[in-house]
Amino acid sequence: MKTYDSRWFLVLPCLLQAALCQPNDTNSKPVKNIGVVLFPSFDVFDVFGSLEPLNLLSLQRQLNLYMIAATLDPVSTAPRAMSAFNSSFGEVIVPSHTFDSVVRDPSFDLDMLLVPGGLGTRAPDLDSTIQFVAAVFPRLQYLVAPCTGAGIAARAGVLDGRKATTNKRSWNSTVAHGPKTYWVARARWVRDGNVFTGSGVTAAVDTIFAWIGHVWGESTAADLALGIEYERHNDSSWDPFGEHYGLSDVPPLE
Amino acid sequence: MKTYDSRWFLVLPCLLQAALCQPNDTNSKPVKNIGVVLFPSFDVFDVFGSLEPLNLLSLQRQLNLYMIAATLDPVSTAPRAMSAFNSSFGEVIVPSHTFDSVVRDPSFDLDMLLVPGGLGTRAPDLDSTIQFVAAVFPRLQYLVAPCTGAGIAARAGVLDGRKATTNKRSWNSTVAHGPKTYWVARARWVRDGNVFTGSGVTAAVDTIFAWIGHVWGESTAADLALGIEYERHNDSSWDPFGEHYGLSDVPPLE
Repeated sequence: MKTYDSRWFLVLPCLLQAALCQPNDTNSKPVKNIGVVLFPSFDVFDVFGSLEPLNLLSLQRQLNLYMIAATLDPVSTAPRAMSAFNSSFGEVIVPSHTFDSVVRDPSFDLDMLLVPGGLGTRAPDLDSTIQFVAAVFPRLQYLVAPCTGAGIAARAGVLDGRKATTNKRSWNSTVAHGPKTYWVARARWVRDGNVFTGSGVTAAVDTIFAWIGHVWGESTAADLALGIEYERHNDSSWDPFGEHYGLSDVPPLE
Repeated sequence: MKTYDSRWFLVLPCLLQAALCQPNDTNSKPVKNIGVVLFPSFDVFDVFGSLEPLNLLSLQRQLNLYMIAATLDPVSTAPRAMSAFNSSFGEVIVPSHTFDSVVRDPSFDLDMLLVPGGLGTRAPDLDSTIQFVAAVFPRLQYLVAPCTGAGIAARAGVLDGRKATTNKRSWNSTVAHGPKTYWVARARWVRDGNVFTGSGVTAAVDTIFAWIGHVWGESTAADLALGIEYERHNDSSWDPFGEHYGLSDVPPLE
């Protein structure tokens, strides 16, 4: 008569979990495909401060980048309102994919989505961007939202029931978008499960390094930081800016 | 009989100097027009890490931005050689002006030119970029060259007889481009007259803040740093990376 090795009963739940692999499971497969959400008046540092170490990493392993916007028209960082000082100052970025093309193709395989912030998060017509984030989130392994990008993530429902942080100067207007979120007032970045949020602007670099360290290990993160001559803030609670503005945590509304 | 106030003889040389105002004189007029040199495989952090505080400043005073490349075709940051790991990873930026259009129009008024570095500085066909920097430099008030952008500035002759620094990982190959330059091995940035050079990649932010402080004052720089939640390195000799690589100053060759 056959006997069963009892060790299988220990292993089986793990195999089952792997087979049923939920889209939000972290580490379910190697991270390879990075998407970046672009919208008018996005913040360039949120995007390119995050992409710099990934550009470098793409020379060492296979990574693919998708710059995703409402249409394929180039996207400008310039303020959309006429400048009070008559400045003409903006950079123009070319998207590679549209929101629709990604959402409508279930085989489009995104492992991480970067959601930047910027002045454009205050625009009244951000619906397609928010809807894209909400639609694609269940297919992601990770979402990284530095700065007021956390406000977009909140409006997309991604931050419901999670801890998060955001830009400290835009604190009040951003946390208002996430009534079901526990907002951490003194944080350079916050990881909650597969979602990383960052404090304002330059915190994007520390946030992406925290994510890189989580995905590929701390030695990879340290090598990349050396390559770009960056002195990381390794303590996620380092935040003189939350302190500067005298901010306190904002728990979810009941 | 008329007598001459002898104080005029003290003031006259100053007035004369102002009237003959050399193009390279610093502070000869308010800084307003910023140019950025783009070439294939430029480093995004050198460009956008520098532009981030200027984007913010353009909301507070009149600033105009010119993204200048060999042609008006969008410029990609992707490596030009096939990726060894089959990555498809690059961002694409739209120029606003060509090198030719700026050089051929003597009324084109640039106050500062940002010359980024990046993998593309190693390309064999960088001549038009180098020639543009050389041609336009006499019309500038300032040139800012972070990272291996200092190598382009050196090849354009801009750094002859000056002190400068550059990326510490690419130290040897970059200083070789500037045999008439005193290369400072332990520096986050170096100012020599109206030319600012920076160390590798993320040093671009400290370099641009040093320049902003020089042009608009330290309180403007401090306000902008607060706005982007940036902890500046205020000491230009802070450089753990020059130390990490054990580098020494390289004086000009006789």
